[in-house]
Amino acid sequence: MEEIKRINVLDKGFVELLDTMPSHHMDMAVVSAARVSYLMDSKGEDKDKFLVGFLLQHGHTSPFEMAEFKFRVKAPVVVWWQWVRHRIAEYNAQSGRYVKYDDTECYLPDKLRQPSKHNRQASDEDKLVEGQEQLIKMMKEHYEKGLKLYNELLEKGVAREEARLVLPGFAMYHTFIVKMNCHSLMNFINKRNHRDAQWEIRQYAAVLEEFFKEKMPWAHEAYLKYYKGVDENIEG
Amino acid sequence: MEEIKRINVLDKGFVELLDTMPSHHMDMAVVSAARVSYLMDSKGEDKDKFLVGFLLQHGHTSPFEMAEFKFRVKAPVVVWWQWVRHRIAEYNAQSGRYVKYDDTECYLPDKLRQPSKHNRQASDEDKLVEGQEQLIKMMKEHYEKGLKLYNELLEKGVAREEARLVLPGFAMYHTFIVKMNCHSLMNFINKRNHRDAQWEIRQYAAVLEEFFKEKMPWAHEAYLKYYKGVDENIEG
Amino acid sequence: MEEIKRINVLDKGFVELLDTMPSHHMDMAVVSAARVSYLMDSKGEDKDKFLVGFLLQHGHTSPFEMAEFKFRVKAPVVVWWQWVRHRIAEYNAQSGRYVKYDDTECYLPDKLRQPSKHNRQASDEDKLVEGQEQLIKMMKEHYEKGLKLYNELLEKGVAREEARLVLPGFAMYHTFIVKMNCHSLMNFINKRNHRDAQWEIRQYAAVLEEFFKEKMPWAHEAYLKYYKGVDENIEG
Amino acid sequence: MEEIKRINVLDKGFVELLDTMPSHHMDMAVVSAARVSYLMDSKGEDKDKFLVGFLLQHGHTSPFEMAEFKFRVKAPVVVWWQWVRHRIAEYNAQSGRYVKYDDTECYLPDKLRQPSKHNRQASDEDKLVEGQEQLIKMMKEHYEKGLKLYNELLEKGVAREEARLVLPGFAMYHTFIVKMNCHSLMNFINKRNHRDAQWEIRQYAAVLEEFFKEKMPWAHEAYLKYYKGVDENIEG
Repeated sequence: MEEIKRINVLDKGFVELLDTMPSHHMDMAVVSAARVSYLMDSKGEDKDKFLVGFLLQHGHTSPFEMAEFKFRVKAPVVVWWQWVRHRIAEYNAQSGRYVKYDDTECYLPDKLRQPSKHNRQASDEDKLVEGQEQLIKMMKEHYEKGLKLYNELLEKGVAREEARLVLPGFAMYHTFIVKMNCHSLMNFINKRNHRDAQWEIRQYAAVLEEFFKEKMPWAHEAYLKYYKGVDENIEG
Repeated sequence: MEEIKRINVLDKGFVELLDTMPSHHMDMAVVSAARVSYLMDSKGEDKDKFLVGFLLQHGHTSPFEMAEFKFRVKAPVVVWWQWVRHRIAEYNAQSGRYVKYDDTECYLPDKLRQPSKHNRQASDEDKLVEGQEQLIKMMKEHYEKGLKLYNELLEKGVAREEARLVLPGFAMYHTFIVKMNCHSLMNFINKRNHRDAQWEIRQYAAVLEEFFKEKMPWAHEAYLKYYKGVDENIEG
Repeated sequence: MEEIKRINVLDKGFVELLDTMPSHHMDMAVVSAARVSYLMDSKGEDKDKFLVGFLLQHGHTSPFEMAEFKFRVKAPVVVWWQWVRHRIAEYNAQSGRYVKYDDTECYLPDKLRQPSKHNRQASDEDKLVEGQEQLIKMMKEHYEKGLKLYNELLEKGVAREEARLVLPGFAMYHTFIVKMNCHSLMNFINKRNHRDAQWEIRQYAAVLEEFFKEKMPWAHEAYLKYYKGVDENIEG
Repeated sequence: MEEIKRINVLDKGFVELLDTMPSHHMDMAVVSAARVSYLMDSKGEDKDKFLVGFLLQHGHTSPFEMAEFKFRVKAPVVVWWQWVRHRIAEYNAQSGRYVKYDDTECYLPDKLRQPSKHNRQASDEDKLVEGQEQLIKMMKEHYEKGLKLYNELLEKGVAREEARLVLPGFAMYHTFIVKMNCHSLMNFINKRNHRDAQWEIRQYAAVLEEFFKEKMPWAHEAYLKYYKGVDENIEG
């Protein structure tokens, strides 16, 4: 990986693609795994690409586990809360017990959405709340009070792990390293880049899909045809 | 399971042992698995108990995966945040997108602890913060303001998934069903009923260990002898 | 579980349902998990059953992980070879290093099938090989020679783990304890009780589906409607 | 990876290191994950190396999951039989249903070992069986008869998946692609490059340890100090 590409998400978050395995032509890792052959052994682009589609169409997902993505992601807790429920992945997190939360590390939405009509637990990105500027201002002021109290508790000698209780916890940004294989990534995107998912995690899932499409154009094409929508599972 | 036993934890949380597999004599599930025999086939208590210890002593952990616990747990997000990092388990969570948070469902500590001397990220349960009553009162008032603002946002039409950003997120109670096999449970207890773990999750881990000891006395005895302390991994 | 039910499979194999979690009304474990409620809390049979279908239809598979099956299975290595590739399960196996293989523990097919027309790697149960009685007799004689040589090697002092190399390894029966949650079981049945799966493992998967249907009639009905055929993955 | 390195194992097997993640300085993936920082961010070699040891000493194994190895391995079924029980890994296998077994693809030991005195299920590499040349010759002849019968069955029209029953199954070579993260690899090496493991799989585990040591010298040093021997689990 010559250079790390970062895409900004929400007001202060981001996704960086830190590394991939293999480092180039990731689609060929699927092909080689299916043929149990050397990496990058090709039978010609047409046959190779056809194989990727054929595998996914017939549910042969194990070769897709041979391509791996490593991301560095900064996201609010409300997003991680849902993300870490995906268990086929590796995570390393910046610790809120170890490191003091920074004053500026709160997610403040720039728009407030109404509940969705079609799904009781979701919100509707086209239905904004009236008077939202005022409400967002109130949220921001409340955040600031929480951060002030947090700092006060620290000064009085309260341990970091405990003082954080007064923070607007769901809004606090944490940075994680996340490693996922392509099979698990497709499952993640399918469930989270979805209108039923919370709007915030969807923004991250959309960026992951962008990286997926860029690095594995054949697999992404197969995903759209044979996988997307097949299995949907939302927790909250 | 005739009756469900509940043990209260923290100010408003609890652990209930909902179910076990097998329903009785769980230690014998380990024995039977190791012998690949019928459930409850015994060679006499002495030999059976010896086998449980022998297996753990020699790292034969797979038979311990054949005994299963199902808990219903109410705990604040700060605890779940660490708990769900244990990936060899099954989780079902009450959704904060779906259900409105209740006014009284915040964890308020009754004591404020100083950082631990021996571990930068932990707190010390013997070193309390001076003037803590006043600080706890300030925390409570801040919680109440957050909950008031949350309700106000809901009234203005903001979706639940978004309004919760102003809550004291780490303090909010959520209820989960958690299923863990005995191997994974021993790993959980070893890491979380530990002085380096956050005090709050340690209270839950101690209750889990109590249930473990009650239901699998042989395995628990073996755990204390051969497993405890062996592998420690704290995230935060 | 009052009594263990055994169903015979192939010439000398079997599946026993050793235990389930919960022990009764397993469908209600899915319902309770989805509601994060006490076990067996019902809103009436119609609503409960509807919920099971709704969950699977919308890909909410996690509540299905709260129902658990434990089987004792005797099957030839050719079946285990494929079975153990399912990683979301717990296994305990009778060891061929520890226990001497018994003379009668070989799987001998009673019919010999031709390759399938529609799938190069499968066989066709309707297209039997001509002269198969004679061929099966030759197989049996070759098995016997292998077992004789195995015993001879043991007598000469060769370790069991090494002597077994001369056995008809794919045909040797092994007994395992297998624990699978309902989600993983549905995945197993979907892939293995399938015309593209090897005929032998299909016989086992069909028995597992029978137990599944008996113990979780609502989930099985939902499986047939919303899950079956969706994701197919055959290894060999 | 510029060039793929192959190490031969047993009479016809091998291990190739196909790919790693990251492609260079794999130890730094552990360091970066623990610091949740950019890949390859260093605080100087002394501090970086110290951190790797500190993490393993205190059971912080999750950063080790961020380094990944991909192998191509040719091994007899008796080895795979034990290997695939390691579930935290990805596998793709050459299929014996799809591809005809080749005449020369049997593992024939060059030495025959006696059972171990200290472990009933193992063999002792220093205690060879008397008259082993003659016994090995008999094994070879029996293999040849099995392969001859296999070919005869195929000629008569028996499907490949069924004809293989007469082969010396445990001795048949299969090629797999195996992907394992460093945490899972350490667990594998700890259990399989061990005197209680079957001699054959130990040869493979020793090669994996060689690759591990070459690619992650710091982690390997920490492994020897803090992990090796801690947790032992042998199946068979």
